[in-house]
Order: sequence, then C-alpha cells, then structure tokens
Amino acid sequence: MAVAGVQNRGPIFHKLAGWGPESAKGFDPEKRPFIWPFLKKELGLTEDPKVVPPVPMDEISPPPQKNWGAFRDSLGSSLRSDQVQDDKLARLLHAHGKSFRDLWKARRGRFDAVPDVVVFPESENEVAAIVDAAAKTGTVLIPFGGGTNVAGCLDTPLGEARPVAVVNLTRLNRVFHIDPESRLVRCEAGIYGPALEEALGEVGMTLGHFPDSFLYSTVGGWVATRSSGMLSDGYGNLEDMVVGLHLVTARGVMRARPVPKSAAGINLNHLCCGSEGTLGIITEVTLRIRPAPVKRVYRGTLFPDFSSGIRAIKSVVDSGEVPVMMRLNDPFKTALSFAFKEKPDGVKKLAADIMKAGINRFTNVDTSNCCLMLTGYEGDKADIRRQTRRVNRLLGKAGGVDIGTGVSASFDKSKFDFPHLRDFAMDRGLVGDISETATHWGNVENLYEKCREALFSAGERIGKRMVAGCHVSHSYDTGCSLYFTFGWAEDAERGFEDYLEIKSALQSAFVEHGGTLSHHHAVGTDHLPWLMEDVSPVGVEAMRALKAGLDAERIMNPGKLDPVDDQIAVWRQFPKAS
Amino acid sequence: MAVAGVQNRGPIFHKLAGWGPESAKGFDPEKRPFIWPFLKKELGLTEDPKVVPPVPMDEISPPPQKNWGAFRDSLGSSLRSDQVQDDKLARLLHAHGKSFRDLWKARRGRFDAVPDVVVFPESENEVAAIVDAAAKTGTVLIPFGGGTNVAGCLDTPLGEARPVAVVNLTRLNRVFHIDPESRLVRCEAGIYGPALEEALGEVGMTLGHFPDSFLYSTVGGWVATRSSGMLSDGYGNLEDMVVGLHLVTARGVMRARPVPKSAAGINLNHLCCGSEGTLGIITEVTLRIRPAPVKRVYRGTLFPDFSSGIRAIKSVVDSGEVPVMMRLNDPFKTALSFAFKEKPDGVKKLAADIMKAGINRFTNVDTSNCCLMLTGYEGDKADIRRQTRRVNRLLGKAGGVDIGTGVSASFDKSKFDFPHLRDFAMDRGLVGDISETATHWGNVENLYEKCREALFSAGERIGKRMVAGCHVSHSYDTGCSLYFTFGWAEDAERGFEDYLEIKSALQSAFVEHGGTLSHHHAVGTDHLPWLMEDVSPVGVEAMRALKAGLDAERIMNPGKLDPVDDQIAVWRQFPKAS
Repeated sequence: MAVAGVQNRGPIFHKLAGWGPESAKGFDPEKRPFIWPFLKKELGLTEDPKVVPPVPMDEISPPPQKNWGAFRDSLGSSLRSDQVQDDKLARLLHAHGKSFRDLWKARRGRFDAVPDVVVFPESENEVAAIVDAAAKTGTVLIPFGGGTNVAGCLDTPLGEARPVAVVNLTRLNRVFHIDPESRLVRCEAGIYGPALEEALGEVGMTLGHFPDSFLYSTVGGWVATRSSGMLSDGYGNLEDMVVGLHLVTARGVMRARPVPKSAAGINLNHLCCGSEGTLGIITEVTLRIRPAPVKRVYRGTLFPDFSSGIRAIKSVVDSGEVPVMMRLNDPFKTALSFAFKEKPDGVKKLAADIMKAGINRFTNVDTSNCCLMLTGYEGDKADIRRQTRRVNRLLGKAGGVDIGTGVSASFDKSKFDFPHLRDFAMDRGLVGDISETATHWGNVENLYEKCREALFSAGERIGKRMVAGCHVSHSYDTGCSLYFTFGWAEDAERGFEDYLEIKSALQSAFVEHGGTLSHHHAVGTDHLPWLMEDVSPVGVEAMRALKAGLDAERIMNPGKLDPVDDQIAVWRQFPKAS
Repeated sequence: MAVAGVQNRGPIFHKLAGWGPESAKGFDPEKRPFIWPFLKKELGLTEDPKVVPPVPMDEISPPPQKNWGAFRDSLGSSLRSDQVQDDKLARLLHAHGKSFRDLWKARRGRFDAVPDVVVFPESENEVAAIVDAAAKTGTVLIPFGGGTNVAGCLDTPLGEARPVAVVNLTRLNRVFHIDPESRLVRCEAGIYGPALEEALGEVGMTLGHFPDSFLYSTVGGWVATRSSGMLSDGYGNLEDMVVGLHLVTARGVMRARPVPKSAAGINLNHLCCGSEGTLGIITEVTLRIRPAPVKRVYRGTLFPDFSSGIRAIKSVVDSGEVPVMMRLNDPFKTALSFAFKEKPDGVKKLAADIMKAGINRFTNVDTSNCCLMLTGYEGDKADIRRQTRRVNRLLGKAGGVDIGTGVSASFDKSKFDFPHLRDFAMDRGLVGDISETATHWGNVENLYEKCREALFSAGERIGKRMVAGCHVSHSYDTGCSLYFTFGWAEDAERGFEDYLEIKSALQSAFVEHGGTLSHHHAVGTDHLPWLMEDVSPVGVEAMRALKAGLDAERIMNPGKLDPVDDQIAVWRQFPKAS
C-alpha cells in the first residue's frame, strides 16, 4: 500500500539551550508541585537558588565563519537558496545536540565550534550532490536528524580547519511505501517519530519505537546511534528493526537489500547501525513494522528493594513471554518519579493515601523506601488480562505488590516530559545528567553497586551532596540495562570541573566492571575516552578501516568513533575554562 | 559454573569426496528402499546407471607443493610437529568444503588448488603466532572449522602464488564457562556442535542451533557464515546468539565485549558474522543459551498446495507465538521426503495406508500431490499440548490436515542424513544440489514461481529432465526462506557445463526477483558472482575496506567476499575442462 507524500512538519528547531522547540510547554512547577521541593530537600538546599536563564542569542559571538564558498559553488544549482542557511541562528542551532555538556555550554553562550553552513536536502539525489561537493572541496559534513543526541554525536569538531556543513535531514521525510502484509515500511531517514507513527497508524500499523526523544528524533538518527525505545522489550531495539537501508557515501550509494535474513557476507544494516555519521549519510530505511495494538496499559508494582525487582524482571524474562515494557526504578528513582506526578484532585489523593497505608501495613513494602516497576501490556482486553495475570504472579512471587493501573495515565501523559525538568533544574544551577550501560544478569547487582560507589565517592571528592538513582528499562535473555540519573547543586566557581569528575567516575566504572560505555545513547564525544577499552583497540581499528574505505577524505563527522591516544585529556579540555 | 576441559573428539576428517567421516554409515538403500526407485522414476531412468565411485587417493596428483619453509621457520617452536601436517591426505582433505562443485571435482580427482600445509593450533595464542608468522612471511591462511561449507568458502584460491596454510581450528574446542543464570556460554570457536550441546546438556542448557551440518560443523564456522539451524524459528539464527567474540587479526586480537546490548559504535559481533575468514580467525565466542526443553516433538500437517502452506506459516507468524520449527515442503519435496522414509513394518504400513485413504476421501488434500509441513514444539507436556492446539487451529484454517506425530521419530532420526543421499546419487551419475534464498512475504510466491521457471527453462536449454523441489524452513515477521533442491541425470560428455547453466539460472533468479544470494549458506566462491548485485558495489567496498584495515597483506582467505569485475567468467572456468 503506497502512502505517498505523507510528511512530517519539516524541521523542528529546538530552543538554543534547552529541550524541544519554543512552542513546547516545558516543565511547569504549578502543574507538578512536588518535584522541586523534593529535589531541594534531597540536595540539602534551604532556599531557592537564583534563576539564571541562558544568555540571549544576541550576546553570543560564534567563532568566525570559515569560507565555504567553494562548497557553495560546487553545489551549483543542486540546492535552492532556502536549502542553504548560514545565518547565526542556524549555525548555533546546529552546533551540537542536547547532552548536558551541550546545554551547559549553550546556556553560557560558549560556542567553541560552530558549523559554517547548514544545508537542508530534500531527496537522496540532493544528499549525493552535497556529499560530492563536500568531497571535491574538502568540506566536513555532519549529518543531523532531530538534533536530540545526548552523547555529543553532533558536536562540530573543535579545531577543524576545513569548512563544516551540517546536513539537516528533516526535509527527507517521505514515507514511500507501507506493506502491512510483509510488515515493512520504506521511508526517508529524516522523518520524525510522530510523523512516521501517524502514517503507519493510518493503516493500522506501528513501528513501536519510542525513545525518550521520540517527539523530536528521526529514523536516521535512531539507526546511526543504535537507539532503544521504551517498548523495546516487546518490539526490539532499532537495530533489530532495520531490514534495509541506503547510505550515501563518498564512494556512492550503499544499498542494503531489504530481505528478512541473508548470508551475503557481512550484514550491511548492522554496519550502519551505530556508525554515528562517520561513514556516510543514511537517506532511506526499510523497517519491520507490526499491527498497532488495540490497547496499551501500564501497571505499577512496588518492590521492597532493587534486588527483588531485578529478580522479578529476570523471572519474567525466563518465562519466555515478556511484556512490551518492564521499567524498574531503584528507591531514589522511585521517589523522584512519585514526586514528578501532577497535583492530584481530592478523591485521587484520598484513594492513593488509603492504598499507601494498606501497603505499609499489610506488605513487606515500605512506600517511603521502595522500588516502583512499571509494566506495559498490549493487545485486546483478553490478551492484556491474560498477560497481566501471568506476569503479576511472577512479580508477586519475587515480592512485588501490585498497585494497579493508576500509574498508567500519568506515565502515558508524562513519558516524554522528563528532559524538560533538566532545563528547569539548570536554570537553578543544578547539574542533572544521565549515563546508561548494560551487563549480563550475573553482574547486574555488582555493577549497580560499583557504579553507586563510584558516583558517591566522586561526590565526596568534589565535596558535594549527590543524588543518584537508577532504573532498568531494557531486558534481554542474557542481561539488562542500567540507566543512572544523577545530580547536585553546582558550585559556580568550579564550573565544569566537578561535572567531569563525576561523569568520568561513572563511565569508568561501567567499563571496569563488565558494563558497556552506553546501552543506547551512542559514543559521540562524551563517551569516546572509553571506546578503546570497551571494544578493544582492534575493534576501533575495524571502525577506522570502514571509514578509511568509504570516506578516505575524512569528511564525514570526523573524530567520532576515532579516539586519539589521550582522549580523556581532550575530553577534559572541553569546554575550555572561560 | 565452570565446565573446564570439556572437549570434543578432536578433528573429524571427512571422506575425501563425500559427506562425513568414513565411520559415518552413509545412505543405505536397504534401510530406505523407496527413495532410489522414486528418483529413477522422476528422472525417467529406465535402468540403474553404472556406479562410478570416486577415484582413489593414490590416483590423485595434487599440484606441486609451494615452499612454505619460511612460514615454518617463523612459527619456530610455537607449534609442535604433530600440529603441522603437509602430507598428501591432509592437504587434499583441506583443499575445500562440501559443495556440489567441491565433491564433483574431488570424485574425479581434480584438485586444481591445494594448500601447502595444514596447522592445528590448540589455543588463541597459537593462532596469534600463526597469524603473525603468516603476516611476516606472506603466507595465505584459510580458517577451517568442520569443513562442511557448501558455498565454496574454504576453496584454496586458484592461481595463488604465495604458500597457503589451512588453519584447522577443531583442536580449539574448550568450553571455558557456562553461566546458566546469565544464559551464556564462552567457548573456543573450533568446538563441534555435538560436543558443545553435550557440555551444555550436562547443566540442563542448550544452544538450540542445529544446522544440517550440526554433527560436523563448528561454532566458528557458524559465525563466519551467518548460519541458521533447523530450530531457528524458536532460537534465532546464529548471529542472534553471538554476545561476544575474539577475532585474531594481523593487527592483534579484536575482543567484542560480551554485553546483551551496546551502543558503543558499530556492532563488532555482526562485523564478524558472515566475514568468511577474510578478516581474521575467530577463536572464542560467547553465545546466548537457553534451558534445554523437557521434551521436543514434531508434528505433520498436509496442505493441498504450497500457497496454502505459506499462508498457514504466515498466519502462525502473525499470531506472535511461533513454534521452534515450521518446515513446509512443496509437492516435489514432499514426495521426496516421503520416499526417504525407512521401510515400515506391517502394522505401521497398514496404519499409514488407512490414514492416507481417509485423507484422500474426507479432505481437500490429495496425498499423491500435497505439501507436508513439519512443526516442532518444545516444553513440558502441557506446553506442547497448548502450543499444538493453538497452531493446529491456525494451520487448519489455512487448509491443513493434521497427521499427528507419526513423522516425529522418523524426522528426528534422519534429520542429519540427507547429505549422504547426495553421495549415493553422485555415485550413480546424478547431479543433486541446493540453493536457498529469502524474501519478504509479499514476494514469496512470486519468487518461488520465478525460480521454478528459471530452473525448468534452464533444464530445457540443457535438454535434461529436471527434478526440483523447495521448502520453507525459516520464517520472520517480514518474510521467509526458500530452499531449493534440484537434480538431473548428468551427461558425462558435458560434465560441469550443464551444472553451471542450471546453478547460475537459479542464483540469477534470486537476485533479479527480490531474493538474496543465500539465506544461510554464505557467499564463498559459488555465490560470489551475485554479491555485487545483492549488496550493491558500495556494500562490497565496505567489506573490502574492513579487509584493507585489518588484513592489509591480504593473507586471510583472499578472494572471498571480493569479486573481480567479471566474476561470472571466473566462476565458469572452475574446474577447468579436463
């Protein structure tokens, strides 16, 4: 079935130093009155810190623009003039993604490295023309989807002598073909999550990929970073969904044939997954889709501690039938997510209080220090009832107390809102960041403890009261992810030094204790110092080899996946002390 | 749990021109009295062809041995003398795998290209020493597991000027660690299927990977060729099971960290899957395992035609709960597999006859022209009953007639025996070969028809009465495999020309009509002419790039995954007319 011409709403430009476009509502402390007092209490703040908004754009002086005239000339008439932008705003907006470091710099107006021009191709042919012109003129290209990456994948390289063009791909947003019978969609890589789901929904299908960035991220970005979604326990990670794709390289277009399985040498789809824009530009993707479920509900279960929650997840995984989502919070993350709720009306509050009292009285769970797990179920009423009964039995066995579907509506409504809280906290001088990893079941609790130790001893070193929580959001036969959220009240004098101390302690703990540098956020610049240890030096050589073969001129997102000898020193330099 | 020291039974040497070791029983026409009359009838042979056994070894003159002294010297004391063999038998046995072409040549004593020496390392360090010595002395290395590959992956390259050493890896056969909790096994790559399953079975676990070659193939070979097993609908393909591995390259050892999921750049496990020995030598693999099922049964269903069988599989896939095996034969393949059965005793024959009469009388199925589907179920009695009921309902809806578990014992007993029939047929001057592909659901029937047309028109061109059957053995959300078996009575005058005509017609049909050159047999030399069209020229460049980076000297299985401009001409030359 052809659904030609379905498009998204064109490029969405984020706030320069925040999450989402200006039109996005952001975090509203009136609507969610508990979270800010909770954070203040946990951080030991007795009064409200001063609100310091990001510096306005007109106070920002980007570095001088390099001459990109040769690139423009070489492009010739391939692009219209509205597809080529080099005004200050466009350049600043495409200088990086949305990592803590990115926003910390942007808030202060520190743009050390900024692209010289941004191009907006509208077809694969135009992308090919751009790559061709860049190769001819020695222009660096940085493929850019929704711009939401939180690992520094989109950083304009510092000290790059050549002109840098960011290729904003969000006008490549057509859905070419939906084939419900073969469960395939073929679309352009720049389409945003909601636009793709809308097109699929029209024929009763879904991709089922819902990363936290879903509203603002694109298919191509998901591929390039090995993205995972909230429902990946049910639908698989993005790399499990890619059936075929096109990658425009300096050597021509690579076309990975969309077949369900092949033994035609090395899997080219997997070669592009996680390539972070270093090999070429993904222009078209064929993805496995599924019928959209009649219904989806989320259900809450409380566990007395993180261990029993982990054992519960493991028992469900072992049972062979896994719900589409199992998301377990540790005690701090549980308290944080309870505090994130909206102001309840009187009746709801009363009901919640009665339930809480009952739990504390009649179960092993202490609601002031427990672990909330959310499970997601899909299907018709009977499917959901059957799954729920089966899973609840297993969760109960592991010590879980079912608290019903009361959490469902609130999770569903707020599931993409969390990043806005970071902006609110940063306005108030708080550091809030995340780092996530994965390991095998036998090592999960050990790694969790080692990471907490690393975080809190680093906190002691910087003399700060840390808050840190963790959740498990993706489970596998052989192990699961661990997703840490941590923060503290920044010391304005010390600035970024403290952040580097904490972040490096956690990332080092990952790779030292059997985890990986990232489960689904990619490497970028933020995690690059740990790549060599994670994948071995020869593993890095393999990635370099691919680049050398497909991008001999090193124009494609140079520096990414390519650590220098003392990468940690580079990492620590950036941003330079002001 | 450590199960140190579990080993297999050392290298298994195959018959020089046949399947399995001399000790393997081979095909016994007394025990299976129906198949040979069936084939004769189908091929229109009125009398038994003359039996021509393979030429005996002492009549074979391999090409002159190149001087590999520098390699031996460079190895120094790294290997004991019994780990280095260059006698005629060792060299001939390691000259290639078990494709039709390989056996056709071997039967006639035509060994155009033979390695100069075979080495048998017993540890990763010894492999590293071998790679190092080879790199230093310009010696070609061909990694060799069980030697069962049927696509020419193990061919000694014709016209190679450098000395060639085959690295037989089957003494690298230790199981280092089984972790039932994390569902992981870490083992050396040269371990054979049965030895690994035996070790896993001791702790109640299984890998669940059972390719037709299971008895004689190794973990490393499975990885290098993107192998699939009979139960891959339930357990996934081999590439889905690889959690980590070691690859010894000329640049050092690549170590892909065994985590359940990572976003640390490009997935190195997938980079090694399907690499066909061109990048390095896989020495160690960490695989996902599962608890061994209490019980496994197979069940038969008859369909009036192939279409309704395909629809039936699709409906089971769509239901979301797929049995561990669904294997659907087309009418010819059904007749072939019925003819392959053992001589039944009187009671069994009577029961079968009664069932057959009932089916013909009361259902839409005509047992003389129908499609047999085998489904495999695992679990305890209740699991199997539940699954069977659910799947049978779907199969019945699509027109299937359940014939119960009578087929179970016979399939279980004979499931690894089919390749022996090829030897029996080749003794009698028959050509029998296989080619397999995969495509998306919307194209399955079209591709099936196109392939049959291609086969039968090629048969007409060579003036031969062809037999050709097909089965579906692997299903996915988005499509399935198609596995063709075909043959004819050879014309001794025309020899290999006819084979090339038929095989190329079928392979071309695959890639012209939306299939891939191979679903799970790999590329090797047999499918190399279609690689460029299958994965696109830039896809081939990507594989070449990896090789250039990790194997700059081109010592690792050179020529594989690396087609020349007119690869089909090379393909047609080989073996040279005598």
